[in-house]
Amino acid sequence: MSVKADPARAVNPAAVADPVCRSLGIALEEVAAGRARLRMRISEDMLNGHGTAHGGYLFLLADAAFAYACNAHGPVAVAQSAQVTFLRPAAAGDELVAEAVERARYGRHGVYDVTVRRPAGEIVAEFRGQSVTVSGRPVETVSGRPRETTR
Amino acid sequence: MSVKADPARAVNPAAVADPVCRSLGIALEEVAAGRARLRMRISEDMLNGHGTAHGGYLFLLADAAFAYACNAHGPVAVAQSAQVTFLRPAAAGDELVAEAVERARYGRHGVYDVTVRRPAGEIVAEFRGQSVTVSGRPVETVSGRPRETTR
Amino acid sequence: MSVKADPARAVNPAAVADPVCRSLGIALEEVAAGRARLRMRISEDMLNGHGTAHGGYLFLLADAAFAYACNAHGPVAVAQSAQVTFLRPAAAGDELVAEAVERARYGRHGVYDVTVRRPAGEIVAEFRGQSVTVSGRPVETVSGRPRETTR
Amino acid sequence: MSVKADPARAVNPAAVADPVCRSLGIALEEVAAGRARLRMRISEDMLNGHGTAHGGYLFLLADAAFAYACNAHGPVAVAQSAQVTFLRPAAAGDELVAEAVERARYGRHGVYDVTVRRPAGEIVAEFRGQSVTVSGRPVETVSGRPRETTR
Repeated sequence: MSVKADPARAVNPAAVADPVCRSLGIALEEVAAGRARLRMRISEDMLNGHGTAHGGYLFLLADAAFAYACNAHGPVAVAQSAQVTFLRPAAAGDELVAEAVERARYGRHGVYDVTVRRPAGEIVAEFRGQSVTVSGRPVETVSGRPRETTR
Repeated sequence: MSVKADPARAVNPAAVADPVCRSLGIALEEVAAGRARLRMRISEDMLNGHGTAHGGYLFLLADAAFAYACNAHGPVAVAQSAQVTFLRPAAAGDELVAEAVERARYGRHGVYDVTVRRPAGEIVAEFRGQSVTVSGRPVETVSGRPRETTR
Repeated sequence: MSVKADPARAVNPAAVADPVCRSLGIALEEVAAGRARLRMRISEDMLNGHGTAHGGYLFLLADAAFAYACNAHGPVAVAQSAQVTFLRPAAAGDELVAEAVERARYGRHGVYDVTVRRPAGEIVAEFRGQSVTVSGRPVETVSGRPRETTR
Repeated sequence: MSVKADPARAVNPAAVADPVCRSLGIALEEVAAGRARLRMRISEDMLNGHGTAHGGYLFLLADAAFAYACNAHGPVAVAQSAQVTFLRPAAAGDELVAEAVERARYGRHGVYDVTVRRPAGEIVAEFRGQSVTVSGRPVETVSGRPRETTR
């Protein structure tokens, strides 16, 4: 895992690597302020009834890239809403890459685009997420019962 | 697992139970034409860096309910796009229930609403999905490399 | 124009009838806390290059219903984002009805669904909007340069 | 109005200029395959109850740019669905510019991004639209009752 972050806003990958990415083997290929690139291999457990990658996992990968990109600015940010368009199916064994790019920021809000591609480059899904900053503290290891945060 | 389907359009739960639902322990509480109710317990592996349920898994649960509801009509349907709003966090151990209801159908297309709730009823996420029917065959166990379907 | 509002949260229609509704002849058939029903006739000026109602005006009608429904609670609310699905075309002369219903509220936020129908009941568009309350004051006639509000 | 279209796929602006753009004074600054830039001045009739540009008109401008961009390929394309995020208000007198760019195409489908800006460049709205091609004929002047097209 290589993390090329803006040094001024560096993110400690160990601090942000979350249980979902660890359990699914999602690799953080790049995380910087407003940007992230993650990689995930589609396993047999990720298939739907049609035998293709479940849309839920395609969204999850995009959403994870979105979360790293918007939290890499420092203050804790959460997703308010997101929209996804599914273009092509992905198969078991496919190594998918999700690339998140910040499109706009205004006040505490941000808009991020994430493209999920097959290794050969064909687009599998296009995602757009809306984030909001909820505190000035960067994400850190949090234990116990989650707070009821206002989103 | 109890499945109360419209007998005229009954769905064989064994035929449609997909690898994702099996591996995550998602229970199909009800599946009928245009409707579905699924239940999933948030595990420690489903938490994000904030210590709450990852939005990807909240979407996945809603998307799975959407898929069962739109495929219960018979012909194979796939998701074209979806939008989700996150209202409140969910915690490890929460048993979330996703309820999908068909809102409209026109030609080969459908619009479905899915609400994800905590056991006490508070809404965790609101999802809306757009489906399209791709063939006249009902979903069955599919093996091998997925076809490149036009969505 | 008949306005059947919750008396406890009554809205003065004259106070909220905005320039857009006046100039387009949009009738406020019902406005109550969390609900609104508006009617608009498609004119020749509202057609696109295909000779059907422009999607922009279908959205505008839905968005106006959404705005009345979320502002009828009292405090000023604005739209943060919205999603629309176009199901069927509408023609010049069609009297369209948009019905907005609150789906969920949490903190300062709300989720609203709006269905736009032809007079015979066929659905033309399905809209979902996300609102946020920006102040405790109800909407009133505002003149001059708009404030830069944080949305 | 200057139209700088790809000569190989040139669009006759007179053929595509639709009633909505004519009646609102929307200028087509650029139309090419997969791209369009439109300009619209916010009039007093376009204000909402808050005294700022109605979200319906912000969406309409973006949707019009989307329509020109996806129809400039030749075959008739229509919008299936769209999502919009409102970032900042616009005021009466503001000359807004909407710039549409094709993000992806697959089969008969397309995904387009449209950014609406104030003259000084601040983003007012971010729009994403999903299109589908409905016939091989380019858009032309259409009169009379619209066909019931399958979208």
